Amino acid sequence: MKFVTFGELLLRLSPEGVGRFVQADRFGAVFGGGEANVAVALAQFGEEAAFVSRLPAHGIGEAAICALRKYGVDVREVQRGGSRIGIYFLEKGMAQRPSVVVYDRAGSAFAEAKASDFDWEKILRGADWFHFSGITAALSPELAKACEEGAAAAHRMGLRVSCDLNYRSKLWTEEQARPVLQRLVRSADLLIGNEEHIGSMLEIDLSRFEREETNLCREGCEAVAAEVTARYGCKTVAITQRRSITACENKFRAFLRRGSESAMSPRYTIQIADRVGSGDAFAAGILYTEAEGFAVQHAVDFAAASCCLKHSVEGDFSLMTAAEVEALASGGGSGAVQR
Amino acid sequence: MKFVTFGELLLRLSPEGVGRFVQADRFGAVFGGGEANVAVALAQFGEEAAFVSRLPAHGIGEAAICALRKYGVDVREVQRGGSRIGIYFLEKGMAQRPSVVVYDRAGSAFAEAKASDFDWEKILRGADWFHFSGITAALSPELAKACEEGAAAAHRMGLRVSCDLNYRSKLWTEEQARPVLQRLVRSADLLIGNEEHIGSMLEIDLSRFEREETNLCREGCEAVAAEVTARYGCKTVAITQRRSITACENKFRAFLRRGSESAMSPRYTIQIADRVGSGDAFAAGILYTEAEGFAVQHAVDFAAASCCLKHSVEGDFSLMTAAEVEALASGGGSGAVQR
Amino acid sequence: MKFVTFGELLLRLSPEGVGRFVQADRFGAVFGGGEANVAVALAQFGEEAAFVSRLPAHGIGEAAICALRKYGVDVREVQRGGSRIGIYFLEKGMAQRPSVVVYDRAGSAFAEAKASDFDWEKILRGADWFHFSGITAALSPELAKACEEGAAAAHRMGLRVSCDLNYRSKLWTEEQARPVLQRLVRSADLLIGNEEHIGSMLEIDLSRFEREETNLCREGCEAVAAEVTARYGCKTVAITQRRSITACENKFRAFLRRGSESAMSPRYTIQIADRVGSGDAFAAGILYTEAEGFAVQHAVDFAAASCCLKHSVEGDFSLMTAAEVEALASGGGSGAVQR
Amino acid sequence: MKFVTFGELLLRLSPEGVGRFVQADRFGAVFGGGEANVAVALAQFGEEAAFVSRLPAHGIGEAAICALRKYGVDVREVQRGGSRIGIYFLEKGMAQRPSVVVYDRAGSAFAEAKASDFDWEKILRGADWFHFSGITAALSPELAKACEEGAAAAHRMGLRVSCDLNYRSKLWTEEQARPVLQRLVRSADLLIGNEEHIGSMLEIDLSRFEREETNLCREGCEAVAAEVTARYGCKTVAITQRRSITACENKFRAFLRRGSESAMSPRYTIQIADRVGSGDAFAAGILYTEAEGFAVQHAVDFAAASCCLKHSVEGDFSLMTAAEVEALASGGGSGAVQR
Amino acid sequence: MKFVTFGELLLRLSPEGVGRFVQADRFGAVFGGGEANVAVALAQFGEEAAFVSRLPAHGIGEAAICALRKYGVDVREVQRGGSRIGIYFLEKGMAQRPSVVVYDRAGSAFAEAKASDFDWEKILRGADWFHFSGITAALSPELAKACEEGAAAAHRMGLRVSCDLNYRSKLWTEEQARPVLQRLVRSADLLIGNEEHIGSMLEIDLSRFEREETNLCREGCEAVAAEVTARYGCKTVAITQRRSITACENKFRAFLRRGSESAMSPRYTIQIADRVGSGDAFAAGILYTEAEGFAVQHAVDFAAASCCLKHSVEGDFSLMTAAEVEALASGGGSGAVQR
Amino acid sequence: MKFVTFGELLLRLSPEGVGRFVQADRFGAVFGGGEANVAVALAQFGEEAAFVSRLPAHGIGEAAICALRKYGVDVREVQRGGSRIGIYFLEKGMAQRPSVVVYDRAGSAFAEAKASDFDWEKILRGADWFHFSGITAALSPELAKACEEGAAAAHRMGLRVSCDLNYRSKLWTEEQARPVLQRLVRSADLLIGNEEHIGSMLEIDLSRFEREETNLCREGCEAVAAEVTARYGCKTVAITQRRSITACENKFRAFLRRGSESAMSPRYTIQIADRVGSGDAFAAGILYTEAEGFAVQHAVDFAAASCCLKHSVEGDFSLMTAAEVEALASGGGSGAVQR
Repeated sequence: MKFVTFGELLLRLSPEGVGRFVQADRFGAVFGGGEANVAVALAQFGEEAAFVSRLPAHGIGEAAICALRKYGVDVREVQRGGSRIGIYFLEKGMAQRPSVVVYDRAGSAFAEAKASDFDWEKILRGADWFHFSGITAALSPELAKACEEGAAAAHRMGLRVSCDLNYRSKLWTEEQARPVLQRLVRSADLLIGNEEHIGSMLEIDLSRFEREETNLCREGCEAVAAEVTARYGCKTVAITQRRSITACENKFRAFLRRGSESAMSPRYTIQIADRVGSGDAFAAGILYTEAEGFAVQHAVDFAAASCCLKHSVEGDFSLMTAAEVEALASGGGSGAVQR
Repeated sequence: MKFVTFGELLLRLSPEGVGRFVQADRFGAVFGGGEANVAVALAQFGEEAAFVSRLPAHGIGEAAICALRKYGVDVREVQRGGSRIGIYFLEKGMAQRPSVVVYDRAGSAFAEAKASDFDWEKILRGADWFHFSGITAALSPELAKACEEGAAAAHRMGLRVSCDLNYRSKLWTEEQARPVLQRLVRSADLLIGNEEHIGSMLEIDLSRFEREETNLCREGCEAVAAEVTARYGCKTVAITQRRSITACENKFRAFLRRGSESAMSPRYTIQIADRVGSGDAFAAGILYTEAEGFAVQHAVDFAAASCCLKHSVEGDFSLMTAAEVEALASGGGSGAVQR
Repeated sequence: MKFVTFGELLLRLSPEGVGRFVQADRFGAVFGGGEANVAVALAQFGEEAAFVSRLPAHGIGEAAICALRKYGVDVREVQRGGSRIGIYFLEKGMAQRPSVVVYDRAGSAFAEAKASDFDWEKILRGADWFHFSGITAALSPELAKACEEGAAAAHRMGLRVSCDLNYRSKLWTEEQARPVLQRLVRSADLLIGNEEHIGSMLEIDLSRFEREETNLCREGCEAVAAEVTARYGCKTVAITQRRSITACENKFRAFLRRGSESAMSPRYTIQIADRVGSGDAFAAGILYTEAEGFAVQHAVDFAAASCCLKHSVEGDFSLMTAAEVEALASGGGSGAVQR
Repeated sequence: MKFVTFGELLLRLSPEGVGRFVQADRFGAVFGGGEANVAVALAQFGEEAAFVSRLPAHGIGEAAICALRKYGVDVREVQRGGSRIGIYFLEKGMAQRPSVVVYDRAGSAFAEAKASDFDWEKILRGADWFHFSGITAALSPELAKACEEGAAAAHRMGLRVSCDLNYRSKLWTEEQARPVLQRLVRSADLLIGNEEHIGSMLEIDLSRFEREETNLCREGCEAVAAEVTARYGCKTVAITQRRSITACENKFRAFLRRGSESAMSPRYTIQIADRVGSGDAFAAGILYTEAEGFAVQHAVDFAAASCCLKHSVEGDFSLMTAAEVEALASGGGSGAVQR
Repeated sequence: MKFVTFGELLLRLSPEGVGRFVQADRFGAVFGGGEANVAVALAQFGEEAAFVSRLPAHGIGEAAICALRKYGVDVREVQRGGSRIGIYFLEKGMAQRPSVVVYDRAGSAFAEAKASDFDWEKILRGADWFHFSGITAALSPELAKACEEGAAAAHRMGLRVSCDLNYRSKLWTEEQARPVLQRLVRSADLLIGNEEHIGSMLEIDLSRFEREETNLCREGCEAVAAEVTARYGCKTVAITQRRSITACENKFRAFLRRGSESAMSPRYTIQIADRVGSGDAFAAGILYTEAEGFAVQHAVDFAAASCCLKHSVEGDFSLMTAAEVEALASGGGSGAVQR
Repeated sequence: MKFVTFGELLLRLSPEGVGRFVQADRFGAVFGGGEANVAVALAQFGEEAAFVSRLPAHGIGEAAICALRKYGVDVREVQRGGSRIGIYFLEKGMAQRPSVVVYDRAGSAFAEAKASDFDWEKILRGADWFHFSGITAALSPELAKACEEGAAAAHRMGLRVSCDLNYRSKLWTEEQARPVLQRLVRSADLLIGNEEHIGSMLEIDLSRFEREETNLCREGCEAVAAEVTARYGCKTVAITQRRSITACENKFRAFLRRGSESAMSPRYTIQIADRVGSGDAFAAGILYTEAEGFAVQHAVDFAAASCCLKHSVEGDFSLMTAAEVEALASGGGSGAVQR
């Protein structure tokens, strides 16, 4: 199946290991961004994946392109223009010390793109699935409009549409985000989001449900997902539940409701090498299992395992094959050497 | 408030990661030393901090100066002379394998300094606080004398004086240390020490108290602190309690008694990136909170959080701002990314 | 005591840290191999250790020789010839992501050696102990024959003989391995193996015993070891029991039966820096303690501690002194800094 | 224009900087191989380039694929099979110390490929140019046959065919190579080779011509190229002339004869960061300029500049754009910063 | 003497060694900028140096501050505000391959500063010298105005004023720059510039003079400097003359005219480790020698030696002491080890 | 032939590449020292080589031992004791910037050794050659005495004795060194030294001879060598002639007189990766060729080539085989790749 994802690709700069910014005399440099991460993960799973964005026509923009191409993502619809690539500096936390992110993405080639830059009929020709997230919409009204236009074209052309809520408080306020995201969610067949964002962005009251280890209980997930379907029309709803113990250890599980069926994944205790992009690895897991027709329980188990394994990989990209994810989803995880 | 700390700054050489000495073909090089670490931590907290010491007038001595200056410590009273900088080699342990320290500090510029090298009236002019530790006193009788003279001048000039016991068995025997440290403790308004050192150096019997997870119970701390005040005159006493689980995991809590008030911090379970200097981060936390007038509970919570967070930072220096420490002290520590 | 071990030395190439193969633009390069690892560990314990093998006469072969010589192993009986050194690529796992090993050892100088290349009378002159493992036997019928001839010569010359089962499913099938290994075990005074290999290779039924945390209970170990002695004639039998929790954490304990005495070590919870070679560190611990005449409980405690500590050292080689192992075996392991 | 190149892709392992093999505890890892290098260079010049080969279906094979894909080479016709990737170890020389290459390529997935593995009608569909070199032919009679079959299919399908002589004395003797290479050269429209190989492999007597700085004079090049055309039928002949001063400094110029026209490039004095692949950068320059219809003098100037610039890039691949090469070819090279 | 310099401090990101952008998975990170470089060099020479600028109040801004403080520059007048630090990516060239600079400095904290942000009476209190360059003026009309106001205040307060022309074609056109720079040069006692910029910016015709190795002959320098003094009023004029041979080798000499005296430095052949900042090292040399009262020949020799030596130091900053520069200026340069 | 060399082994710490001390946050760590370097070079040439010294019994001392053992040097006569290993910090120069050495070797285990620590009859048993240099003698009167006693024992036992003058002005004055070195030279059969040291230490007037490129002409060398033989009794005299162009480029040639024969090597222009230990590589070349009975011209050519090639190897040790040196000595040096 061929997926098209739409978003920004950023240069990420991080001190080595657990170094603080002031200690660094070199930065590890990788590229990443929610929708690009989804495209890479899908390509690793063996699907066709194309990424749509805009990058500057200089050597750093070229390096960004190369990073995607390396992992088999079709980059022919990445436009070249603008003057800079968005950057974020990531100082990885350790134990009780939290990670620090310094965004430097204003004025990027993508943030300054126009809705009219994207000819969706041409871009989506031959594709089966269109995916974007709330981050793209947050970057500018033009890009929110581009998401809407892309979703509309996709529907016209018979593609499925998915949206990952991904509300980012450093990019816009809840008040700004809510109407935009609600409109975009209405355009999606499949919604992915964590419970907090679903509550605040889609105005669903979570306080009436019981909690298990700080997360919504299964009944709550069920009710929330049903409400999303009822009010916003998304046929499939995936809810992620993360609990941060320290910067090195998180707990994670997820819930999936498709039509009248639903399932909860096991809860993983996760040691973290790199947390960034793990939500995107979950989203890719959901898209892959939807595309491949997995049963609901199998699907949410696969997506949760994909998320879990991403935490063990450095960089924004999840570099796990479907077989590796399947191995964990079906009961592996002891990490024993094969020899 | 302006603090002056007095001690040695050493070059520390460590194999990368968890490498053993015989495996290393490069050493990470940082500078550190108990009192310098306190000065750096205070500067990060936003206080004025000056460091007094002696370093050789060659390129490695200059690099040591630069390391302090980088973090905002006033180094104008670091004298230049002597022929070598003290060195210590640190092989970081891992799990059940303990760290190994090889000291090579004999004959250093500081160890060969004379008490008369330090004109305390001039050095302490304009300062509010004078701090030293038992390590300085252990290096030579001249330096023990310099500590005493510094403390005396400080008292004359209206500064507060603090002493961190820091008994080091590789530098002197208990018999050698006891009379010297007792004399120095008598010169201090504020004493910091772990329970073992307070017991052995200040001849306070700890065996009569109950233990909680190998550490002295709160009542014991209370009694010990009171006895220190009674016998040695220190108005404020801070006691640290560490329990080493493995080379990667320690537990830590601390107790503070100021006048008639006292408080115990929470006990942290700490994953260790770099344990060295964590006691100094605690000391800096106590000095900072004393200077800023924190209430006793708040003070010990802040200092314990400062100690906990230091373990997550590579090198001897604690590079945490007061706001970052405060965030943990007031209930953070889940390490979640802010974005 | 002088030990001679016989096996292959491989070049191991690994991405740095927890990097995946596709992310690597450099590989850490170390040398290792079961029997070479035993020789290095014994040399670190202060014993005389010689390694017998075959390596190509080019710069990479020379580097392999240097790696052993560095740690005091006698390499004068390593023959030079053939065209390549065996290689294995190791991608270290992390948490739920397992390690990946890609073997590239076919056609190596050692794998193509002839039994007649090894003049055992000459090689074993002056030695006290001959050691090999099932890996050597798996490489070719010629090498299996060389093991047999070496063991026979050793017996004639009054040396003790030990065999580490080390069945490797990537090198041969169980059906191929079983008759060869059974013949070799019969030539050994001392057998080392994990419970699974002892069960499958020596055809001993493990299913009749109870399990503790997935491992055979002590009574089971006792019965199995006795059966090995009864059926294969090995006077001493060491059984290892590993339980893989994740790629970063294992549990390990071991059982030793010598004559009528037997003992079980404590069970260690092990954080893993590098798992490879930990079984060899156990084997070296058993050989060392047999050679030095340790009592059975002390011996198995030492060997288990040796295995535990190896996990904290990068590379295939265990670089722990006997004193360091003894410190853990006799109750250390808190990893506290000595200073 | 679409080019298809056919050859082996090897893993290259090198100590960092000018380190010797015995000093290395890590190896830089890149992928390269004559025909792959040509494909990458052409893709950087903006042409379509596909690479045909065979690589093992494991993580190291995948990494090799990724390395090509990163730079825009079409890898869909790289077959997956066999058990190993060919390797070569490169110890870079410095000044008077020569580089050392240790080949470990026997038994590679490509070396064991069959001629019948390559369905040239399918592979070459839509392409304009087929390129291979003498290295491929040297690996096995099957691969020499595959080159011939590829060239024959190319001619049938209207593609142009080019051959880079690339005689390698470590792979076969002159006697073995001569008849095979002569047959392959007869199948090529365009021949590339250095003067020594053209002399020895194509049995052309060079001794009758004068020398300039050890290289054949222009008249000699003219006569040799004419003889190649006359005897072997190649319409276009490119001759490279290198003179090695030290491992860090070479001189290089080239000669091109196309039909009745010919031209000699300027002679470059080249400081060397990485010499490997510079001949392939020259070949790619010739292919590019032929495809784009450059005049003869312009063509040889471009190709020589491409070769010169490759020496400044680490790894086997030339990563220069056509514009960068053109800048040097048309008189740049002062290396001044643009700002 | 106390110097105040005014300009931007940028984060510079470079691939390691001679790597191209697309090859980099880490970037070396240093801070630099013309006027900051001058301040650092002066501090290394033993002068008091303060830097005035504006940096964002986040961790990367803090790291920039620390980089200056490390080398003894007074940073108390660096304002904190704005949202980003200017960045430039530097790909170092090699031999015939030129360096590539990608600027990403638009919208930086400094570029968005207002002239009114700088209270020159306060900033310059106690200082002796005010220095800026054409780069600051190029960033915005507000900053050009700030330079003018700073120069005016300096004159009122009795400081000397110096200007380094530093025309940058990537920041503004010649037409935009000319009137601004001419106005600023009129405010300076001392002008520094290369011959090309002096010609184009100050509208002085260079074509009437003879050339030596592409540079203006001494008589030409003399005449040009006299014309600058006559038309723009700068009492002292320093002219630099660089000739780029390759990216690794430059030639450099300089001319100084003070009042009626003038002198030409020797011409250095320079091997380049890092070319950036070498002009600033020259400027610092001129400022230092003016401040210290060197004779004209000694002054230009010192400044040229300072420039030459900077090329051997990685990063933008010159880290040479006055004694080291003096050693070269007075005839050293053989690079022999002292031992 | 079996050589015994006697001297100190130091830990050398260097910033990476051309970094200055203040820039370094890691130091490359290698071990080296004149006489140890000679032993390593001889072992690489295939001779038996033993090193006699004294090192502390801690992990850094162990690492030093391992470094020698790795390259095949017999370390059984290295005594363990004392508290520290001598250290030197090396900042490599670049172009006109000279290297900087900071010695920190006072109080080392070797410097504090007693003459009586070395039982020469036992140490030299079975050996053929005893070598030391003036550095050992400079460290203490006890060590000078040990050299004398070693030389005396060597003569008694029929070994040949060689001395490398190696005067070091940072260790003692010319006045202190002269009588000691003259006494030691009288004990040597073979003397090695550069022309300056032979002149100043052995009081031979060099001013009467002509110079070629700053070095003594051949006739001068002849006369000087003859005078050394006449006055000090050394049957063989080797004179080195170095000319430092920059920190990256030196010229070198050497002269050898044995009995009535003499020869001058070619003069090499040398690009420098690491200059330290190149004199020791020359000395090892002389010892090797004497031991192997090379003719005089062949011998000096080999030794000069050995010296030249050492400059291309990082670290103090020369890691060249005799075959590699021979290849350069007999006309190689173009550095062309062999493939």
